[in-house]
Amino acid sequence: MTHTETTETRTTETRTTETPATKTPVTVLGLGPMGRALAAAFVEAGHPTTVWNRTSGKAAELAEKGAHVAAGVAEAAAASPLVVVCVLDHEAVRAITGPAAEALRGRTLLNLTSTAAGHARETAAWAAEHGIGHLDGAIMTPTTTIGGPDAVYLYSGPQELHERHAEALAALGGTGTYLGADPGLAGAYDASLLDFFWTSVSGYVHALALARAEGVKPTDLAPFARNIGTLMASVTHALAEEVEHGRYAGDDSNIRSVHAAMTHILHAADAHGLDSGVMRAAKALADRAVADGHGEAAISRLTETVARPSS
Amino acid sequence: MTHTETTETRTTETRTTETPATKTPVTVLGLGPMGRALAAAFVEAGHPTTVWNRTSGKAAELAEKGAHVAAGVAEAAAASPLVVVCVLDHEAVRAITGPAAEALRGRTLLNLTSTAAGHARETAAWAAEHGIGHLDGAIMTPTTTIGGPDAVYLYSGPQELHERHAEALAALGGTGTYLGADPGLAGAYDASLLDFFWTSVSGYVHALALARAEGVKPTDLAPFARNIGTLMASVTHALAEEVEHGRYAGDDSNIRSVHAAMTHILHAADAHGLDSGVMRAAKALADRAVADGHGEAAISRLTETVARPSS
Ligand SMILES: NC(=O)c1ccc[n+]([C@@H]2O[C@H](COP(=O)([O-])OP(=O)(O)OC[C@H]3O[C@@H](n4cnc5c(N)ncnc54)[C@H](OP(=O)(O)O)[C@@H]3O)[C@@H](O)[C@H]2O)c1
Ligand SMILES: NC(=O)c1ccc[n+]([C@@H]2O[C@H](COP(=O)([O-])OP(=O)(O)OC[C@H]3O[C@@H](n4cnc5c(N)ncnc54)[C@H](OP(=O)(O)O)[C@@H]3O)[C@@H](O)[C@H]2O)c1
Repeated sequence: MTHTETTETRTTETRTTETPATKTPVTVLGLGPMGRALAAAFVEAGHPTTVWNRTSGKAAELAEKGAHVAAGVAEAAAASPLVVVCVLDHEAVRAITGPAAEALRGRTLLNLTSTAAGHARETAAWAAEHGIGHLDGAIMTPTTTIGGPDAVYLYSGPQELHERHAEALAALGGTGTYLGADPGLAGAYDASLLDFFWTSVSGYVHALALARAEGVKPTDLAPFARNIGTLMASVTHALAEEVEHGRYAGDDSNIRSVHAAMTHILHAADAHGLDSGVMRAAKALADRAVADGHGEAAISRLTETVARPSS
Repeated sequence: MTHTETTETRTTETRTTETPATKTPVTVLGLGPMGRALAAAFVEAGHPTTVWNRTSGKAAELAEKGAHVAAGVAEAAAASPLVVVCVLDHEAVRAITGPAAEALRGRTLLNLTSTAAGHARETAAWAAEHGIGHLDGAIMTPTTTIGGPDAVYLYSGPQELHERHAEALAALGGTGTYLGADPGLAGAYDASLLDFFWTSVSGYVHALALARAEGVKPTDLAPFARNIGTLMASVTHALAEEVEHGRYAGDDSNIRSVHAAMTHILHAADAHGLDSGVMRAAKALADRAVADGHGEAAISRLTETVARPSS
């Protein structure tokens, strides 16, 4: 089963025959760092853009660029056929969209807030009940990438809606991938990918604390840490294949060896009195795999350990 | 204070005027996956190579390629001016080298086992007591890179020893960086970098388990996970700068926002009954930072949270 179908978003150049007047109006609800970046990209691509935020004072720069600042959610929603929401979490999405159901009727609500699959399906059901089109999306790159070539977006929901709004989505730049009709797909990918990302960041902040405690300057460690990130990127496919086929040979490196490395990392971190809860939890997983007789298996086998929690 | 000084290891081509007979004999103690890869690189570069392993049966392929298989550590150590040890951990290094102190006298012991700074300093003190030269090293890339252009090595200890063995180290390929005279430096970098790497891997195995539980094929997730690794690499320098200067502005993304993402990841993982100890520990750090009033700060500020554990 392959869900992915990469839809290279169209560049501005391919739309030179269109006049600015034909651009779809777009509304952006939520003006945190990401909401502001999205709204700026729509404005810059020539979409009539309406913005709204729960608390005021975040729209000044966007207004200067030509965005219309709406006084309320209903007014903002009524302004455009495509309404993008990008806020803190699922609860914030509900708090904003719930009272605006009538204004959203007949429009498309694109939720670019990071949410889990289950929440996206809930929103889809709620939207269907109220005659609102719903697309779920996820943004996998930082605000600085938005509108540029490096941005990465994931979408799921009715393919017809994704296609209908292709022009507006192109304004966001980068690569958008339509994952499939199940509204939960983007959230499933999003949660998994952010799980990987924020755990990696947690490892890196601990590594910086450990290096500093050892007298190593953070920026002296950084070039080597960059190599580690690149190495991590390069092993993603091989580890995924091991998990997919359940083949955990461990010929090049095994859990016992990693466990020994984790032990010496904790030894060093403990000597400096650091909070090493994250590495301790990682080692606890390896402990469990070794105790279960899988010390000679490849590290990717921890996926099975994670999936079968002990009592 | 800058410790690093990159010494691009010489390639085989630059040594065409030397005859094979001039190559330094090298001994490798420990024939796990990494020890075997190191020994193979020495053999292939034309160094008379002697190998030894605690248990027998791991040297067959190396013997075929021309390595001499020693019957004991003392014999192996006596065969070469440079003795490389690469085993499970510091305790294994001690178990191997302790009884061979006399045979090692006057030689250089290069420890390429992953060890913490404190252990490397212990080994240095022990070596000095016994008239043994000691260099500590760390290998930051997998076995498959050894001997090729992508291998990454770190060294610390007496610069004179590092220079004396430059030709042999060149046989290992890639890039070697001499960090300084303090024997603990390579271990300090090693522990920090492996902390980052193995935490990232722990995040990825959990991400694969979560994706699979959501019906997403691991190899469908992998290309996006590769992007995450590349993204992680690209932010290493900026995060290190924030930590170095204690500037945690949080204008583009803040701890509260990450905390919300972690909450929805755990929500999804809990729904599938996964063991999410690692993410739970990462969220606990973010919890503490938010409780301490740093919710609006950049995620890199968690380095300070890690460094000041609560009671
Ligand atoms: N920043 C990034 O680099 C990045 C990258 C990829 C994905 N994302 C995702 O994008 C989404 C938005 O992130 P962000 O960085 O822009 O900021 P954020 O801090 O996650 O969210 C801030 C926004 O949420 C609003 N909000 C919070 N609680 C609310 C509530 N109960 N009702 C109404 N509005 C509420 C805030 O309004 P007020 O101003 O009124 O508080 C503000 O507009 C998140 O899901 C995040 O994971 C962000
Ligand atoms: N594999 C990699 O990709 C990789 C990458 C970077 C760094 N490293 C580092 O390289 C080192 C070696 O790793 P590895 O993958 O080769 O395998 P490993 O599983 O870490 O170590 C296996 C080796 O250690 C020996 N050993 C274990 N306990 C011993 C003891 N008490 N006395 C004597 N020998 C003992 C084993 O001997 P027996 O065969 O007799 O058990 C075998 O030679 C580790 O520090 C690891 O972190 C490995």
